[in-house]
Amino acid sequence: MPLPDRYLTSLYVRCEGRCLLIDCGEGTQSAIRSAGRRFKPIDTLLLTHYHADHISGLPGLLLTLGNEDRTEPLDVYGPPGLKRLMGAIKVIVPEVPFDIVCHELEGEEVFRVGDLTARCFKANHSVPCLGYCLTKNRPGRFDPEKAKVNRVPMRLWARLQQGEECEGFTPDMVLGMPRKGLKLIYATDTLPLDSLTELGKNADLMVLEGMFGGTDKDIRALETRHSTMDQSALLAKNAGAKELWLTHYSPANPHPEEYEDEVRTIFPNTVISADGQQTTLRFQEDV
Amino acid sequence: MPLPDRYLTSLYVRCEGRCLLIDCGEGTQSAIRSAGRRFKPIDTLLLTHYHADHISGLPGLLLTLGNEDRTEPLDVYGPPGLKRLMGAIKVIVPEVPFDIVCHELEGEEVFRVGDLTARCFKANHSVPCLGYCLTKNRPGRFDPEKAKVNRVPMRLWARLQQGEECEGFTPDMVLGMPRKGLKLIYATDTLPLDSLTELGKNADLMVLEGMFGGTDKDIRALETRHSTMDQSALLAKNAGAKELWLTHYSPANPHPEEYEDEVRTIFPNTVISADGQQTTLRFQEDV
Repeated sequence: MPLPDRYLTSLYVRCEGRCLLIDCGEGTQSAIRSAGRRFKPIDTLLLTHYHADHISGLPGLLLTLGNEDRTEPLDVYGPPGLKRLMGAIKVIVPEVPFDIVCHELEGEEVFRVGDLTARCFKANHSVPCLGYCLTKNRPGRFDPEKAKVNRVPMRLWARLQQGEECEGFTPDMVLGMPRKGLKLIYATDTLPLDSLTELGKNADLMVLEGMFGGTDKDIRALETRHSTMDQSALLAKNAGAKELWLTHYSPANPHPEEYEDEVRTIFPNTVISADGQQTTLRFQEDV
Repeated sequence: MPLPDRYLTSLYVRCEGRCLLIDCGEGTQSAIRSAGRRFKPIDTLLLTHYHADHISGLPGLLLTLGNEDRTEPLDVYGPPGLKRLMGAIKVIVPEVPFDIVCHELEGEEVFRVGDLTARCFKANHSVPCLGYCLTKNRPGRFDPEKAKVNRVPMRLWARLQQGEECEGFTPDMVLGMPRKGLKLIYATDTLPLDSLTELGKNADLMVLEGMFGGTDKDIRALETRHSTMDQSALLAKNAGAKELWLTHYSPANPHPEEYEDEVRTIFPNTVISADGQQTTLRFQEDV
């Protein structure tokens, strides 16, 4: 339920000029505008599940995208039921001037979103629900010695370095070992997922659920298949993540910042995120 | 399109503890909360038409009403297509714990909403669209002389005065002529409706569209079947309304208050209404 100073949970991810949005509850478009972000570059929606607090902003978003004269197709990913959902939403917004391409994700699937690789994984909620792992790969450094050994003509070096195959030569013939890229994990509406310890290994940022704070709410979280702030902090610690943002607080948890000290005893780099929270993830400096 | 400081147009009407809502674009539930109003007493929705800026907040509103443990049915009125629309919305919010009773309004119809009489009328928009006239009747004053002439036993006077029929006697047997009640007109998304001159006669409040200000936008308003601020002011004047609120401004009209002086030369009691605008309509003092 949106509170006056707290919109519903959504994440806007921008990479190399293209944008994707994870979930879109009512008010998300206002939140995007308040954060000074643009609608036009959004070409992909990733939906975790179809509880209304994650999708009730879709009609308004589609209307706004249409009003901005979008003609490029919009790719929408989500668990089974997506086509039925989007069919219903098109009754509400019938005149969208662009194609909506639905991709129903059955289980663990990997797909490309612009320069990012997206991997979905199953959450453990009361309805089929997915989390997403987004990675940006970083190729190895250019290695002229390797290029020479592989007898790559010098006129092709630049194109191969950019990742292009040409004349039978492949980029790995001129590049060193891939370097560490970027990894972002997004999972709300789920019991703690042990699989994230492995999948989220060395993640640059984990965005996890902080439905309830303290320990007196553990039972309530279990019953409703949500995670507490402590549980998510423990996952981030076990994965060796760089940073954790907690989000998706219960209306019964109006002041999650009160639990900051407690949560940080479990995982120090925890941010009790608030509306408009922003960061830029960068490749680590070369050593 | 919602702007950061301007939600989509909606009107919340409270009468004798019961509430109705006219239209519900995205963000309406946040606006209701910001205005300090409650969801629980809303038992009726009146929809003008099904463009997304008037209905995109319905999934979130239904979810919130459900979360407040509503079990009483919700009556929804709107032009033809309502059942199809609500069917689609129930795909988005499938687990609403109360009945939604759809009333499709074909043309000019009159129905009761609590203590109010609602009358719908056809607007002139690009799709079937309705306006609403809400009236609250005020019975005549108790007239003991009339009661005696009509040989009404004194023990029934109080109940008859409250509007109850008893033992074959009717309220009009103890009451004088009905006194002036209250009248509210609501019409957006329409070319100026000459019929409002008659229907809105002596209205206490007219809430009309101010899509565009100035005169350079007359053609644009005509093309899109909307009304300008000037046109609505002229309607309020011709109807002899007490007060006019302008609303439903175009995003291309971000500062409608700039037109206040101009509009008031047409109808002085014009309010360039803003989010959260509130008033209480009261019966006029007995003379």
